[in-house]
Amino acid sequence: MPTLFDRAQIIAETLPYLQRHHGATVVIKYGGAAMTDPAMRRTVLHDLVLLRQVGMNPIVVHGGGPEINAMVDRLGMTTTKVAGYRVTDAATMAVVEMVLSGGTNKELVQTINACGGNAVGLSGKDGNLLRVTKFTPGGADIGFVGEVSAVNPAVIRDLVAAGYLPVIAPIGVDDAGQSYNINADTAAAAIAGALGADKFIMLTDVPGVLLDVKDPGSLVSSVTVRDAQSLIDAGQITGGMIPKIGACLDAIARGVARCHIIDGRQPHALLVELFSDGGIGTMVVPDETTLAPLPAPPTVGTESR
Amino acid sequence: MPTLFDRAQIIAETLPYLQRHHGATVVIKYGGAAMTDPAMRRTVLHDLVLLRQVGMNPIVVHGGGPEINAMVDRLGMTTTKVAGYRVTDAATMAVVEMVLSGGTNKELVQTINACGGNAVGLSGKDGNLLRVTKFTPGGADIGFVGEVSAVNPAVIRDLVAAGYLPVIAPIGVDDAGQSYNINADTAAAAIAGALGADKFIMLTDVPGVLLDVKDPGSLVSSVTVRDAQSLIDAGQITGGMIPKIGACLDAIARGVARCHIIDGRQPHALLVELFSDGGIGTMVVPDETTLAPLPAPPTVGTESR
Amino acid sequence: MPTLFDRAQIIAETLPYLQRHHGATVVIKYGGAAMTDPAMRRTVLHDLVLLRQVGMNPIVVHGGGPEINAMVDRLGMTTTKVAGYRVTDAATMAVVEMVLSGGTNKELVQTINACGGNAVGLSGKDGNLLRVTKFTPGGADIGFVGEVSAVNPAVIRDLVAAGYLPVIAPIGVDDAGQSYNINADTAAAAIAGALGADKFIMLTDVPGVLLDVKDPGSLVSSVTVRDAQSLIDAGQITGGMIPKIGACLDAIARGVARCHIIDGRQPHALLVELFSDGGIGTMVVPDETTLAPLPAPPTVGTESR
Amino acid sequence: MPTLFDRAQIIAETLPYLQRHHGATVVIKYGGAAMTDPAMRRTVLHDLVLLRQVGMNPIVVHGGGPEINAMVDRLGMTTTKVAGYRVTDAATMAVVEMVLSGGTNKELVQTINACGGNAVGLSGKDGNLLRVTKFTPGGADIGFVGEVSAVNPAVIRDLVAAGYLPVIAPIGVDDAGQSYNINADTAAAAIAGALGADKFIMLTDVPGVLLDVKDPGSLVSSVTVRDAQSLIDAGQITGGMIPKIGACLDAIARGVARCHIIDGRQPHALLVELFSDGGIGTMVVPDETTLAPLPAPPTVGTESR
Amino acid sequence: MPTLFDRAQIIAETLPYLQRHHGATVVIKYGGAAMTDPAMRRTVLHDLVLLRQVGMNPIVVHGGGPEINAMVDRLGMTTTKVAGYRVTDAATMAVVEMVLSGGTNKELVQTINACGGNAVGLSGKDGNLLRVTKFTPGGADIGFVGEVSAVNPAVIRDLVAAGYLPVIAPIGVDDAGQSYNINADTAAAAIAGALGADKFIMLTDVPGVLLDVKDPGSLVSSVTVRDAQSLIDAGQITGGMIPKIGACLDAIARGVARCHIIDGRQPHALLVELFSDGGIGTMVVPDETTLAPLPAPPTVGTESR
Amino acid sequence: MPTLFDRAQIIAETLPYLQRHHGATVVIKYGGAAMTDPAMRRTVLHDLVLLRQVGMNPIVVHGGGPEINAMVDRLGMTTTKVAGYRVTDAATMAVVEMVLSGGTNKELVQTINACGGNAVGLSGKDGNLLRVTKFTPGGADIGFVGEVSAVNPAVIRDLVAAGYLPVIAPIGVDDAGQSYNINADTAAAAIAGALGADKFIMLTDVPGVLLDVKDPGSLVSSVTVRDAQSLIDAGQITGGMIPKIGACLDAIARGVARCHIIDGRQPHALLVELFSDGGIGTMVVPDETTLAPLPAPPTVGTESR
Repeated sequence: MPTLFDRAQIIAETLPYLQRHHGATVVIKYGGAAMTDPAMRRTVLHDLVLLRQVGMNPIVVHGGGPEINAMVDRLGMTTTKVAGYRVTDAATMAVVEMVLSGGTNKELVQTINACGGNAVGLSGKDGNLLRVTKFTPGGADIGFVGEVSAVNPAVIRDLVAAGYLPVIAPIGVDDAGQSYNINADTAAAAIAGALGADKFIMLTDVPGVLLDVKDPGSLVSSVTVRDAQSLIDAGQITGGMIPKIGACLDAIARGVARCHIIDGRQPHALLVELFSDGGIGTMVVPDETTLAPLPAPPTVGTESR
Repeated sequence: MPTLFDRAQIIAETLPYLQRHHGATVVIKYGGAAMTDPAMRRTVLHDLVLLRQVGMNPIVVHGGGPEINAMVDRLGMTTTKVAGYRVTDAATMAVVEMVLSGGTNKELVQTINACGGNAVGLSGKDGNLLRVTKFTPGGADIGFVGEVSAVNPAVIRDLVAAGYLPVIAPIGVDDAGQSYNINADTAAAAIAGALGADKFIMLTDVPGVLLDVKDPGSLVSSVTVRDAQSLIDAGQITGGMIPKIGACLDAIARGVARCHIIDGRQPHALLVELFSDGGIGTMVVPDETTLAPLPAPPTVGTESR
Repeated sequence: MPTLFDRAQIIAETLPYLQRHHGATVVIKYGGAAMTDPAMRRTVLHDLVLLRQVGMNPIVVHGGGPEINAMVDRLGMTTTKVAGYRVTDAATMAVVEMVLSGGTNKELVQTINACGGNAVGLSGKDGNLLRVTKFTPGGADIGFVGEVSAVNPAVIRDLVAAGYLPVIAPIGVDDAGQSYNINADTAAAAIAGALGADKFIMLTDVPGVLLDVKDPGSLVSSVTVRDAQSLIDAGQITGGMIPKIGACLDAIARGVARCHIIDGRQPHALLVELFSDGGIGTMVVPDETTLAPLPAPPTVGTESR
Repeated sequence: MPTLFDRAQIIAETLPYLQRHHGATVVIKYGGAAMTDPAMRRTVLHDLVLLRQVGMNPIVVHGGGPEINAMVDRLGMTTTKVAGYRVTDAATMAVVEMVLSGGTNKELVQTINACGGNAVGLSGKDGNLLRVTKFTPGGADIGFVGEVSAVNPAVIRDLVAAGYLPVIAPIGVDDAGQSYNINADTAAAAIAGALGADKFIMLTDVPGVLLDVKDPGSLVSSVTVRDAQSLIDAGQITGGMIPKIGACLDAIARGVARCHIIDGRQPHALLVELFSDGGIGTMVVPDETTLAPLPAPPTVGTESR
Repeated sequence: MPTLFDRAQIIAETLPYLQRHHGATVVIKYGGAAMTDPAMRRTVLHDLVLLRQVGMNPIVVHGGGPEINAMVDRLGMTTTKVAGYRVTDAATMAVVEMVLSGGTNKELVQTINACGGNAVGLSGKDGNLLRVTKFTPGGADIGFVGEVSAVNPAVIRDLVAAGYLPVIAPIGVDDAGQSYNINADTAAAAIAGALGADKFIMLTDVPGVLLDVKDPGSLVSSVTVRDAQSLIDAGQITGGMIPKIGACLDAIARGVARCHIIDGRQPHALLVELFSDGGIGTMVVPDETTLAPLPAPPTVGTESR
Repeated sequence: MPTLFDRAQIIAETLPYLQRHHGATVVIKYGGAAMTDPAMRRTVLHDLVLLRQVGMNPIVVHGGGPEINAMVDRLGMTTTKVAGYRVTDAATMAVVEMVLSGGTNKELVQTINACGGNAVGLSGKDGNLLRVTKFTPGGADIGFVGEVSAVNPAVIRDLVAAGYLPVIAPIGVDDAGQSYNINADTAAAAIAGALGADKFIMLTDVPGVLLDVKDPGSLVSSVTVRDAQSLIDAGQITGGMIPKIGACLDAIARGVARCHIIDGRQPHALLVELFSDGGIGTMVVPDETTLAPLPAPPTVGTESR
């Protein structure tokens, strides 16, 4: 049990990280167990309020799969598949939008505000944030699933400047005004790029990139774009990790400097990532990145003993 | 068929109204046929964009009864009644919130933006906008139906200042973070009061206050608070008009200078109200209101012929 | 006789034009019958107040020929001519300046303000606005007639930013501080260029460029710089229209995007020009101009019927 | 002939006056020989530029009698008198306005700007500056001579804030838009009051208030409102000095702290007034004024020898 | 040894304190062992940088006794006493000022900046910060020891607004420009009052107010002004604690809401005080203070396990 | 003895210089007799307040040799020499810093403020102003004497913008936080360069560059960089003037437009330099400088006689 002085020592040691990240725009893709488990959810949202409080600018883009599925089931809607993809027809899309924008989104907003934060929930319709075109994987028509064609980040910037913490549901519209569902990873990457974010952090249900998925010790703690591509080509990154890495590569191509795939199931994963030297999970960086050392080592603690 | 010059003459004659209403904060309770009929809806939302364009600050508070009922029916949810009121249990409340905040609200936002506007949809959760306590008519427990206990209009002011048109779903939370449904009329009145709005306009499905509901000629075009109360006491205002008038009286008590009950089914009802001398429908004003004449009569037209 | 709803429909249809022209700087050369006829004058000035009210920034540059001639006659001053030009000697120049800056200018200011506007009258002396050199057509000395050598538009920008509508008499000074008269068309074109105006509109006593001056149907509704030059070279633009077109070409060379020669005698000519698709009169545009369509067609009206 | 070091010593000794008057709003009634004599005029206007340059805010209100009379004579206009006053009929008023607003005013602006200043000329019409009612001395109708009924000093404040030096011709309008001539002394006093000016300085053709007009030694260097009234009542202030003192008393009643009647014929009279302990001429102050000593005596000079 | 997750949990638990103290102006009297011991000094100054980093506005007022004594000794200056007080003669005062303003002050500034802070050192002369009169205890002349007669906190406010951390040596001047030494406790209290500080924290070499100086368990953790006075009157607060309490009472009389006497020898004493519920040491508060509970209990940790 | 009108004439003639230097950043190296002589010091500091008052931005960098030597002597510290340079060991450096930052600096601040100015004293430690590396002339270790390696002028800019007059002691720190003494000439030149100063003025004890040091008539009133170098190469600039010129050349290389070496012993030397056509002393300018004539000749005086 740490004493008050032990605690103060730990707080004191956060200074170099606070200085390094001050004013940083951090886009967080939020989903998985960290969102579905109530206790984890409260911890993550509380930590977001903390990040905002100490001078960073977190922006949340969330998914909402389980809630959507539950509602689709309750409504007895049947699901069809085309080319292996579930089709989002008009009726399903209406349900997706209601659940994401009106259910999940507002619940996150409310919990953040209950922690003393000041969140505003948005979908891609608000402030003309996300414009999409139809996504047709391999030419297949899978309904109202969109690809981001343009991001207008003004509403995010305005809200951040006025002191709010934006929480975004990945819904977009096409030029005809039709609503589309967007994959949350790709929406978050596009938003991070449009904002010129300092960091893009994906909260997932895995520890990061593992060269051997059965061996936690095989974690790749950082990787460049070129090396990430090589690992994919060599079949060492597989399965669900490929689109995660793909979102990171997309964000980097749009100008983001650092992307992180971390395990949202770990308590306070965001704080560990941002307030420790090594961070956790896997960091993806542009080729030729030189990782700057911390401006001043936190040597205070040892001196004062 | 008016010529270009006839049209220009009509445009020219709007000047005194533009001058009178410049910078005015106008809270609009939006519901009824003007919202359910697609063509009427598009006209109303288009007119809101126009009002914003010429220098007023419209804020929309909307209802959503039909969409909610449709979804409740689709989900096969049973409805119970207590003391004559339909009970909003937790499951119903979740549906109400999804439909209002994620369905109706975003659809209005999208249509406004398609007209070249820049709307942002909010619920009472966003930016800690609406805090409620439980509404217990006559002591009856009708579930999660709330009364507004506090309005924090900062998020509205910030969005208006940054150029956005706020569209608000009447959902609130209590101190424990529980969501509640709020009657849209009373939510709109409370918001108008908190903003110190210049005008509060209710779009309804009736022409205004009729002394004889079968006689359109019995329309009361303006009434003071005291006289409205007398008409209610005398049984000359009855039925569904009583809560409408009540919302106006509440808004006036909170500091709003002018309230209007107008017929949203009339094409461009908002424009007719704001750009004509007599307006339409019924205006409710504080006692002792002196109605200022227009600053300069629009005599240009006659001179230039 | 249009009903209130007809009128509202016409007002609603102005939205795309309001959006297109919002914040536009519009320099208006004001003269001719639209200025000498009292009723027309009041209509034009009233319309300027309207343009300012709905978010455009009109700037007026006016002539004043008839008033000058009347005063010169009253004073019994003789007029000499050199090389076909009337000579502006020192005594005449003093009268010109008094009439323009102290008579015409202030009368326009007063009428604008009587319409609820907020005009400030300037001559080229105020705020060091217009610097001139002597104009010597063909080498002839015609006295104190100046060519604009430099425009310092700061005083216009400052007044517009503070909410005023500038009204400018075309008087300038040379480096020695001597006053000069400047042709109002060329002064207006130079000011439009220095401001980087979005539009330069000349109110004249003709319908625009007519290929056959006797045939109103021969109106050229738009013309590029290159084509305008060709028409002059081919003798199809003649007489008093040549300097009008010349002022437009000068304004375009200084960076103005669109110039208009319209018939100020038409009631509300400015409104017709700015609030209709085709506009009126002749528009002169830079070569390679692609005329953008309106952002959204005003289809509201037909839908709501 | 002072050396460079003598000159520097004199400049150094201005510091306490610069500190005392920094940011002061100084309304100057400008007329008399200081305006009609070309060399004196250039000196006065040059000194105004200096005052603005060192951080004061001078505002000029000018008369123009001689120029008006000259033009009226040239036009052969006859003058009638009513109750001893010269009548300003409509035709005369038009000439008065042209000469003042378009002649004298612009000439002053131009000379100020030639000294490196940045003046803007105004009449009471610009920015709705001066509203008047008809002046009827003893009930007599003397035509279009106005009394100031309202001052809207916003245009002066806006121009001063933007760096300009306002020069104002005393022309006003009544509610019907009719132009009126206003006595420059009373216009200046009203403007000084509306601005809450720190000083109101009248440049006149006399040394100040003389108890014996033949004895310069009888100059009253300062006087309170009460004592000024006593001197008038006792017949010791007479003739043309009475309206001068009256303007001062009016300005003080409107809130001005210090009024000065000084001899504009003295070279650099404004500088002598503002940069010496005793000043020149007669100062009129509110009753109970305690004259503050200079913040720090200019003892530098004697020390450095 | 805490894990990364233990550390993150502790960081997370700081949120309610960060929210409570955000933007707070905290004046810190700095002296004693916390300043003379090099390791303690570095810890304290590092913690000040942290406080600034997370959004508080710390202002430091420091003493410097030991350094002054050392220099006085090195210079072989003799010390006289009057009425029990050491006399600060002119020669001593010159040394005091040099040591405090040029030695101690700049060393603190430099250490803060080495921690990544942005400090600016001031004495009471800079920006006319501290004006004093001669302090004559019991009428005795003890030389150039001053009492604060006026504080001009503008330079502190300007530096804080521009992002700097002010460090202040307690030197003042009298109206004749003579330098005086000021007791650091009283200087800090006066500055805290002039700033309307939220907190005034005195770093001392004792645990706080002890009712029995030999019993740490007799610590008074909070006391009102009235009760503090009673304790003094009853002889329960004695010796060196009396002037410490006196400085707190003075600060409260000048408008400070909370004063703290804490043990600067404890590691991270400032952080423990500001980031724990009970704080440490003794808090002095105005009579009738109601101590607000923390806005939200930090229950996150237990939930997330 | 000049009359009030003579004095006003001289004040009037300052206008072109006030206009030319308005807003100019002027870095002044202050030392020599102008600082040690009490009367001269008061005159110089008074003149600095005047320069700030009339709209220039003076920044003072001062030396302090005599005070340092006196204190070193009083402390009985022995001085060693290496390679002809006096060595600044750690003990000496501590004394240098105290005397400069805590003695001289604060005395200058206080005198400026007594003249009605608003000075703030800084050393190179404040706001991370001056970073240094060790200066080793010819490889010799002369202790803690530094060369400027980086200037962070933000604290100067922030103070000037907030209305303060910065007074800077030439103390710097190296990357390890060690204090160093810096030659005041070179520190001032580096600061002038970092600020992009309009002028760098060195107050010295000589009349300027004399080709024959015994002949005041041999003063070089202006010289380009190239010609200054030639004069040094030719042995015509010798002794103590070489580092003075060197500081000017360094400032010019860093972007300063005009450097002046003037005789600070002359009364009001700064005013003479800045308020006369020829100035005094020697001006050093970049090669290819075209010296602009004054914007308007001060001809007012002669006209008004």
